[in-house]
Amino acid sequence: MLILHENMESGNAYKVRLLLSLLETPFESIQYDVVAGATRTKNYLTNINKNGRIPVLQFEDGRCLPESNAILYYLSQNTKYFPTDTWEQAKVIEWMCFEQYSHEPFVAVAKFILTMLPENTSRRVEIPTLHEKGNTALQIMEDHLCQHDYVVGKTLTIADICLYAYTHKAHMGSFDMSRFPAIKAWCSRIEKEENYTEMYYDL
Amino acid sequence: MLILHENMESGNAYKVRLLLSLLETPFESIQYDVVAGATRTKNYLTNINKNGRIPVLQFEDGRCLPESNAILYYLSQNTKYFPTDTWEQAKVIEWMCFEQYSHEPFVAVAKFILTMLPENTSRRVEIPTLHEKGNTALQIMEDHLCQHDYVVGKTLTIADICLYAYTHKAHMGSFDMSRFPAIKAWCSRIEKEENYTEMYYDL
Repeated sequence: MLILHENMESGNAYKVRLLLSLLETPFESIQYDVVAGATRTKNYLTNINKNGRIPVLQFEDGRCLPESNAILYYLSQNTKYFPTDTWEQAKVIEWMCFEQYSHEPFVAVAKFILTMLPENTSRRVEIPTLHEKGNTALQIMEDHLCQHDYVVGKTLTIADICLYAYTHKAHMGSFDMSRFPAIKAWCSRIEKEENYTEMYYDL
Repeated sequence: MLILHENMESGNAYKVRLLLSLLETPFESIQYDVVAGATRTKNYLTNINKNGRIPVLQFEDGRCLPESNAILYYLSQNTKYFPTDTWEQAKVIEWMCFEQYSHEPFVAVAKFILTMLPENTSRRVEIPTLHEKGNTALQIMEDHLCQHDYVVGKTLTIADICLYAYTHKAHMGSFDMSRFPAIKAWCSRIEKEENYTEMYYDL
């Protein structure tokens, strides 16, 4: 059986759980306390991911695949969640790159600071900048989703799954999501998918 | 003819120039002064890239593809620079994600601060942290390249092209590259490729 090395509070891990659920693919979850350093042990760095991050998908033969978006790519091949048209494939990769570079470092990190660190953490000073840059990313999504039901093409792809993960929990990082009605409608569409699964918890 | 919206000092743009050169694909280059805001004009944001970044590859029919790694993906389809095996494809995506998330924000930004901003910029305070995180990424590459001639599989792929761009100019961000002999040997292998092209300048 597939093993997912992960953490329930990670949107990056949730991307993979969501796709596995949509695909009705069974897997075993192994949870790591990332804040406590459980992914920085010698064993983890040597055998699971040299970069010390979750999620990692491990196959029955022991091979490990890190990077949430690479896992989405692998699992979606020859399924309806990855387009067959090369241009649409490239647009999926484009939006996944956008997520990793222009969205996740702000939207996810605001949530992390406000929900995972102590209330008196000095990192709260980062929040205004994270909100400014995160809102820029969310506005780009909003403008796009005003004109499109899904991020690429006319159906759900891994580009949606990738962006949905941290976007639908952005309020936990104190983003004002009432500014983004098209994002809200898109989230509702995704949540109606057969075999959709929620993240573990909410605040 | 293809149009590359870019800047000569951008490693992300150079990735695309290098692959276009290897493929012997002609293109027109349009240069933007990013620091002066040339990619934040209304025209650029509306017609080229809503995210205000370079590089963007524009096709003859006007379609635009942003995100350097998405451009690499698109251009490499059905060429020897993208593997046919699904596992190797996923490993290429994994390393491109690694580059965007764990390498470029440190290795590229150190170069940017030290070569593109005024000598008295307050951003020089970021350099020690950028070096610490960038060296972690470079060490992961070094350990991998000690055992492999290329990043994925046995030949040059877009994973190499992606990682090579900022790595081979990391010294411009004051990274001590003498620590990484396997990276140096790998760079030399890439530089011997037929139709290899250099970045525009060096310091």
